[in-house]
Amino acid sequence: MQTIEHELAQVEALMQQFIVTHTNDEKLQESMRYSVQAGGKRIRPQIVLMVTEALGGKIDWNTYRASAAIEMIHTYSLIHDDLPAMDDDDLRRGKPTNHKVFGEAMAILAGDALLTMAFELLSHLTLSSKQSLRLIRLLAESAGASGMVAGQAADILAEEKQLALNDLMFIHRRKTGKLIECAFLFGAILAEASHEQQILCQQLGQEVGVAFQIRDDLLDVLSTTEELGKVVHRDEALQKSTYPQLLGIDRAKEAFAQRLAQADELLAKLAASGAETYLLQSLIHRLKID
Amino acid sequence: MQTIEHELAQVEALMQQFIVTHTNDEKLQESMRYSVQAGGKRIRPQIVLMVTEALGGKIDWNTYRASAAIEMIHTYSLIHDDLPAMDDDDLRRGKPTNHKVFGEAMAILAGDALLTMAFELLSHLTLSSKQSLRLIRLLAESAGASGMVAGQAADILAEEKQLALNDLMFIHRRKTGKLIECAFLFGAILAEASHEQQILCQQLGQEVGVAFQIRDDLLDVLSTTEELGKVVHRDEALQKSTYPQLLGIDRAKEAFAQRLAQADELLAKLAASGAETYLLQSLIHRLKID
Repeated sequence: MQTIEHELAQVEALMQQFIVTHTNDEKLQESMRYSVQAGGKRIRPQIVLMVTEALGGKIDWNTYRASAAIEMIHTYSLIHDDLPAMDDDDLRRGKPTNHKVFGEAMAILAGDALLTMAFELLSHLTLSSKQSLRLIRLLAESAGASGMVAGQAADILAEEKQLALNDLMFIHRRKTGKLIECAFLFGAILAEASHEQQILCQQLGQEVGVAFQIRDDLLDVLSTTEELGKVVHRDEALQKSTYPQLLGIDRAKEAFAQRLAQADELLAKLAASGAETYLLQSLIHRLKID
Repeated sequence: MQTIEHELAQVEALMQQFIVTHTNDEKLQESMRYSVQAGGKRIRPQIVLMVTEALGGKIDWNTYRASAAIEMIHTYSLIHDDLPAMDDDDLRRGKPTNHKVFGEAMAILAGDALLTMAFELLSHLTLSSKQSLRLIRLLAESAGASGMVAGQAADILAEEKQLALNDLMFIHRRKTGKLIECAFLFGAILAEASHEQQILCQQLGQEVGVAFQIRDDLLDVLSTTEELGKVVHRDEALQKSTYPQLLGIDRAKEAFAQRLAQADELLAKLAASGAETYLLQSLIHRLKID
């Protein structure tokens, strides 16, 4: 692998180019590209790339395409989550949200189009057909009615309700966890890792997924709008149950640190199986909150 | 093939069962099942089944799954089209629309979940992996940013604008035409038809797709809400360009008849290639308006 910046630039270029060549309406294209361009840290593509690399897989167009497909799913979910009928957010990554710029109807359609395009992209992989199908099924399971969308539905129904910690965790395992886990498994499958390594990657994905959500909840409480590039204290305004609200800030930070410690143990096992986990570990540790 | 009613009942059962076993949130499941249960004529599954049969293919679980996948895409598109930000419809197939019953947020998510589930379903086919991938790519192309969603975007942008007939046709070719064409091609691929037959099926799908849209426009003008089970004269209220509005009712009826005549010619060619087109022809002719 060249630098991660170089590899991510390939993923960016691929997403933009695929949208341009596979969209048959100008305004729709503009709306899709707007949200994809808005960037973010591209955590999911980074995971796919680094897990593939760690397990000795080749970084090539298939890795870029698979990374782009997951990021398109993530991007569509942000567009739909920001809609007035959902979280009603005006700001995302420091820019007006999609529906603020293109209107609600076009935002709904841009989301639908990006969701569909993720599967179109995966149908263009040049892996064995069997491997491609496995990625497609995994993405559908992670993103859909048994994964992310189910978590999103449960999250909305839980607004203004006081949740127990277990219920909160079950929501997040689906809402954000499943797609993170999917990114880890994508890397393992692309690298044709052993069954044992795939299981370790899946467990690692679960730990990182939870850590990621606790971190998101903490940042919502601790940051300013300017720092975060999106409106903060939204959870409180929506009366959402969160880790800091249920545990207090200090214990939420502890829970976060515990997840990272668990992740380190799994990384050590992966390393013992022959994986080169240095970059992957540093990615996970970059999530740390001071 | 047993009776079409019997085969459609299998598709219905499969959709309901797949939703129940692959959805991890009760309310989301209820919302998805509500719209799938609302029924309709199941034109797209009928096309898949009848084209498969006409071309000598076996009607089995793969045919049912592929039919169910297309119908889930169609159902999701109706849920999203009916949203207040889109066509703002309260009634669909004689029942309150999804968002009227479950709220806008859940309707958006039920649509997202059905869209994702269509690809999950196709990833469960037991065809050759190559054939499965071909169906997945075809569905994504037909339903997404180069097909149905693009047509929907163009349609919304065209509201309150006077369109030329060519522009109107280009919108409809994507908005409704592509998914109908996809259903014809699904049947041809499932039956492992010859390349020549696949081309004929695609052309047939294009003719039927246009006929279908002209018919829809005409029914909006000619029917009562009670007859149609949805609010009529919506096109006029939304100031949408339609075939009757551009051509007048009589010439729109003529254009419709011409498409059916073209379809008959293609059916004759298919029959000459060895297909048994009787049932398929009767399905197409049942679309007729008195």
